[in-house]
Amino acid sequence: MRAAVMYGAGDVRVEDRPDPKIVQPTDAVVRVVVSCVCGSDLWPYRSMPATDTGRPMGHEFLGVIEETGADVTGLKAGDLVVAPFTYSDNTCDYCAKGLHISCRNGGRYGFDGVDGGQGEAVRVPHADGTLVKLPAAADSALLPSLLALSDVMTTGHHGAVTAGVTRSDTVLVVGDGAVGLCAVIAAKRLGADRIVLAGRHEARTALGREFGATDVVAERGEEGIARIRELTGGVDKVIEAVGTRPALDIALGAVSDGGTISRLGVPQYEQGPIGPAEFMRNLTLTGGASPARAYIEQLLPDVLDGTIAPGRVFDQEFALDRTPDAYRAMADRQVLKALVRP
Amino acid sequence: MRAAVMYGAGDVRVEDRPDPKIVQPTDAVVRVVVSCVCGSDLWPYRSMPATDTGRPMGHEFLGVIEETGADVTGLKAGDLVVAPFTYSDNTCDYCAKGLHISCRNGGRYGFDGVDGGQGEAVRVPHADGTLVKLPAAADSALLPSLLALSDVMTTGHHGAVTAGVTRSDTVLVVGDGAVGLCAVIAAKRLGADRIVLAGRHEARTALGREFGATDVVAERGEEGIARIRELTGGVDKVIEAVGTRPALDIALGAVSDGGTISRLGVPQYEQGPIGPAEFMRNLTLTGGASPARAYIEQLLPDVLDGTIAPGRVFDQEFALDRTPDAYRAMADRQVLKALVRP
Repeated sequence: MRAAVMYGAGDVRVEDRPDPKIVQPTDAVVRVVVSCVCGSDLWPYRSMPATDTGRPMGHEFLGVIEETGADVTGLKAGDLVVAPFTYSDNTCDYCAKGLHISCRNGGRYGFDGVDGGQGEAVRVPHADGTLVKLPAAADSALLPSLLALSDVMTTGHHGAVTAGVTRSDTVLVVGDGAVGLCAVIAAKRLGADRIVLAGRHEARTALGREFGATDVVAERGEEGIARIRELTGGVDKVIEAVGTRPALDIALGAVSDGGTISRLGVPQYEQGPIGPAEFMRNLTLTGGASPARAYIEQLLPDVLDGTIAPGRVFDQEFALDRTPDAYRAMADRQVLKALVRP
Repeated sequence: MRAAVMYGAGDVRVEDRPDPKIVQPTDAVVRVVVSCVCGSDLWPYRSMPATDTGRPMGHEFLGVIEETGADVTGLKAGDLVVAPFTYSDNTCDYCAKGLHISCRNGGRYGFDGVDGGQGEAVRVPHADGTLVKLPAAADSALLPSLLALSDVMTTGHHGAVTAGVTRSDTVLVVGDGAVGLCAVIAAKRLGADRIVLAGRHEARTALGREFGATDVVAERGEEGIARIRELTGGVDKVIEAVGTRPALDIALGAVSDGGTISRLGVPQYEQGPIGPAEFMRNLTLTGGASPARAYIEQLLPDVLDGTIAPGRVFDQEFALDRTPDAYRAMADRQVLKALVRP
């Protein structure tokens, strides 16, 4: 099969890889229908040291089951399924708590002999625990929005849930990337009245307004904080969907005492400000990597009936062989989120 | 009047100060009956640069109203009152949310011309919003436990509340100081089944067991973490009642993925680990300086009927003139918490 492999910063190649086969009786092989490039794929795209072996890329995909292992009981060949961005057994204590991202038998696509999602097919471990069957056809117009359940939409939702967003809230979303925009959708879905979106990419913030953002703040740094405070008087609930220190600093500057900052972007820093000043302000820092599997069934009806349309974050489509162009276009911020079709 | 003033690290003096008088119409003057030394007073006791002017010390006190300003309506001379460790108007937006520590018109004892609590009398700003009238006599045996509402007990309670402690929980309390021990009381009061107390001072951990700790872990660092994990398999709710990096590291090591660490000790660090590892684990960092005023009325009935007896943390009493000895004894860990009586 053909699949995308990263060999170092800026070096993504689409090449021939062995066709996936059932290894464990709990595996399924999924023929990918749509996949995509994640904002988090851009971090290694910018910084990965060169390697000879390469790393299969992609952790968001939707496809048709081709084959199942002997122990798979809930899925069969021909089923259309979406994969959350990590696999999980859905039975361990963490999964039972809805924290599938910490599954004791879980793991990541592209590691430990498991294929990446940016390819023609994927062997999915713990298929019963991982994959969610979709009541849709493989050529449905809803595929992009269903694919978004794999990561961006369930991640945005995780931010809104952990920030405690509820009816009539004012919420700040920092970042106009695909996750930030999905966080806007999620905050609105949970009843937020006012959603301030901090971002400066006009096409993206325009989409954010369509998703439910009531205000857009394009200013950065202290100026951005001042503008958000002017608009809101300070915000109790912040979703930080970037992962950089400047983004965290905007969150810290705009949040009210006693408020909550939920982080969705993988932090590009090891240490951060959690000293006496933050302590005296009673700030709560929460969020983290989304347990996407826990949220898919919850959000699925709203995607199916069109209440939410997170697939609108995909603004360009690439054939699999053009995956390197998809990375380049996203890294250059020419494309918000690239859909990849084998 | 006589009052304690700190002139630098290790240099506490009891000296003559002007008798407090009503300055603002919302002030009250309180004649102190009992006061005490706080663990947080020990930070400047160890590190404060020498100064000529000095800083009046103490922020926990209970006393009798001597005089009230013209605008004070809820209190009158002769009332026995307890003061939360900061003053607040109880009317601003933060107070309305129960976050009195962030009161827009609030402040700290010993600063801005306001007396400290370790003295014969205190001018209390925003008396109506700050002081809580106690249905007890000035010679009640309950005074130490009522005084504990000023800070340690309401702080321990803040930790249990922000950690989300509820019925049947397993809770880790890091630190066997007075706040840690009160956090044990608070966790038990909110229904925790199992309370692991991390501390190595035997008299204190013994009191912790009487307060409700079911397990004591005396080991430190990695050994302590391993022991807590062996006992519990990881803990969802941690109250960190010290404020040092080693204490935070025990909390981080012992908490389960998806768990919450509530900090009660003023952090003795500016930056801390909130990087990708903590992000992937979905840890929540919360807590902070307690809005004591918000909790006093809530805890008061349990003190009055003897359900909780946080005053047991006071293990030695000092006359006001011996306040310097009280600091020394606490700094040397000979005394857990010193009661000071003018």
